[in-house]
Amino acid sequence: MKYVGIDIGGMSVKCGVVEDGVILVKKSAPIKAQADERVILQSISALVDKVLAAGNFEKKDIAGIGIGCPGSIDDEAGEVRYCCNINFTKTPIVEIMRELTGVKNVRVSNDANCAALGETLYGAGKGAKNSVMITLGTGVGTGIVVEGKLLTGNRSAGSEGGHIQINMGGATCGCGKRGHYEAYASATALMNQVAAACEKHPESMLAKHAAEHGIDGKTVFTCAKMGDKVAVSTLKRYIKYVGEGLVTFANIFYPEVIIVGGGVSNAGDALILPLKEYVAKNVYGAEYNPTIEVVAAKLKNDAGIIGAAALCIE
Amino acid sequence: MKYVGIDIGGMSVKCGVVEDGVILVKKSAPIKAQADERVILQSISALVDKVLAAGNFEKKDIAGIGIGCPGSIDDEAGEVRYCCNINFTKTPIVEIMRELTGVKNVRVSNDANCAALGETLYGAGKGAKNSVMITLGTGVGTGIVVEGKLLTGNRSAGSEGGHIQINMGGATCGCGKRGHYEAYASATALMNQVAAACEKHPESMLAKHAAEHGIDGKTVFTCAKMGDKVAVSTLKRYIKYVGEGLVTFANIFYPEVIIVGGGVSNAGDALILPLKEYVAKNVYGAEYNPTIEVVAAKLKNDAGIIGAAALCIE
Repeated sequence: MKYVGIDIGGMSVKCGVVEDGVILVKKSAPIKAQADERVILQSISALVDKVLAAGNFEKKDIAGIGIGCPGSIDDEAGEVRYCCNINFTKTPIVEIMRELTGVKNVRVSNDANCAALGETLYGAGKGAKNSVMITLGTGVGTGIVVEGKLLTGNRSAGSEGGHIQINMGGATCGCGKRGHYEAYASATALMNQVAAACEKHPESMLAKHAAEHGIDGKTVFTCAKMGDKVAVSTLKRYIKYVGEGLVTFANIFYPEVIIVGGGVSNAGDALILPLKEYVAKNVYGAEYNPTIEVVAAKLKNDAGIIGAAALCIE
Repeated sequence: MKYVGIDIGGMSVKCGVVEDGVILVKKSAPIKAQADERVILQSISALVDKVLAAGNFEKKDIAGIGIGCPGSIDDEAGEVRYCCNINFTKTPIVEIMRELTGVKNVRVSNDANCAALGETLYGAGKGAKNSVMITLGTGVGTGIVVEGKLLTGNRSAGSEGGHIQINMGGATCGCGKRGHYEAYASATALMNQVAAACEKHPESMLAKHAAEHGIDGKTVFTCAKMGDKVAVSTLKRYIKYVGEGLVTFANIFYPEVIIVGGGVSNAGDALILPLKEYVAKNVYGAEYNPTIEVVAAKLKNDAGIIGAAALCIE
């Protein structure tokens, strides 16, 4: 069966036709995030038409359309409750997309949930019954699979793992509260930590590299690899921050696998191996329990499309 | 159908015959926690016989025996992996109890899990599909129900919610790590916080009350009720500690109800109402999502027996 998966982001929308976890054809388009909700969804519907045309498919070939969207989604009601980056508030996205596309089987879930579902079913978590996926991007998203099912909570309001408390009274989170995981572990937080280290150690290679090339999610990994002490210690502290959250999830869920995604995960082993070690060393009862795998996301930017499509599979 | 529920604790074992969540007859006995595992289980088997006799039941009336035990349990394997307070290490508790009692349908799970299952099915969470129960005792235990099923994680190693990180580098937990929830929210932690407040404010009513009566889980509630400022501020801080953990669970699970059990929960509304307010104020997306109920456990000391018996129900 072929499904359309739509991955809505703050900057662009990606759309693909998916069969058995494989994308047959895909396309993306910019999003007018602040336009009227109907205008946004009309352009997404037009993108669906384009991607179908590109693959020589017709609407009748499609068994359903799954949508991953940032923000708080009520999966059951098919509604985007609110979304920081896109002009959706109490938007009945499933109803509108049904109307615009003529496809009846339309589902929606949070974008991080979709990525986790895709990665667990078809990517880095293939074969696991329990997994926690954590996406280190602008914020921190989590997608959790328990006994093969996406954990969503009452009215799909759960799985907001970026907003767990890890350091009472600490750094301010995007949500306004203090000490949340996202304020320590997101790509944004990492870049802030690097900027602070550069200011404190202007003589470091890290500071010089940053002055020349700017700071992004890779900066600290590049300089740590070159042996810069300030970069090494900044990275070590960041690993501890990310690791403490993973240990919290491990102690609650004890999944077979923790999947790390988002831009920062492109650092690969330099991030993943120390995280795996951190979890193994700090999870409760480690000496009696199976080792938890920590792996980088495999499907990368495709996870959202593939997972969104998987929402439609009964 | 009648089941036997056994609730093993560090000091005593409680055992009851349960039907539809109601205890028909129960008994308890002290436990020789450091005796040989077989000796401990023989005395528990003898207790089962006593409770059956007390209710004029025979073994054939019993559809199964469920056991709640502290420590790390492998539910599927029927094994107690390790237990801080009782001499069980890699103890095949289900196999031994089958042999000793002659009953085939024997199940085991963590004691906090059992209490949560009992409270969710028959007590304070009746009717909820998703619940988080937190037990504030010597340590902090959690029992989590997702879509009506106990969350246990791979090899039942999960649901160790006392060991989530809430304050990096902070107070030392019983497990040796720093900053864990248990180190802030357990009855033990509360008593330490009260002792520290008494030392800092020897002139306070709290200090005088403590000097006269000693410190237990009720001390701070008694003095706060009488208006002592030191007690009020100590309690307020404790509520914040407990609340931060509840918010973390709420952000992950967004359950319909959070159930607070354990000795400290006997304080009733003086604990529960401010906790409910704290969760409502701090949970992510509160303005768009249903209010999470926070309630005291109802079944109290019976939850363990009732929940253990419920393990046997398919």
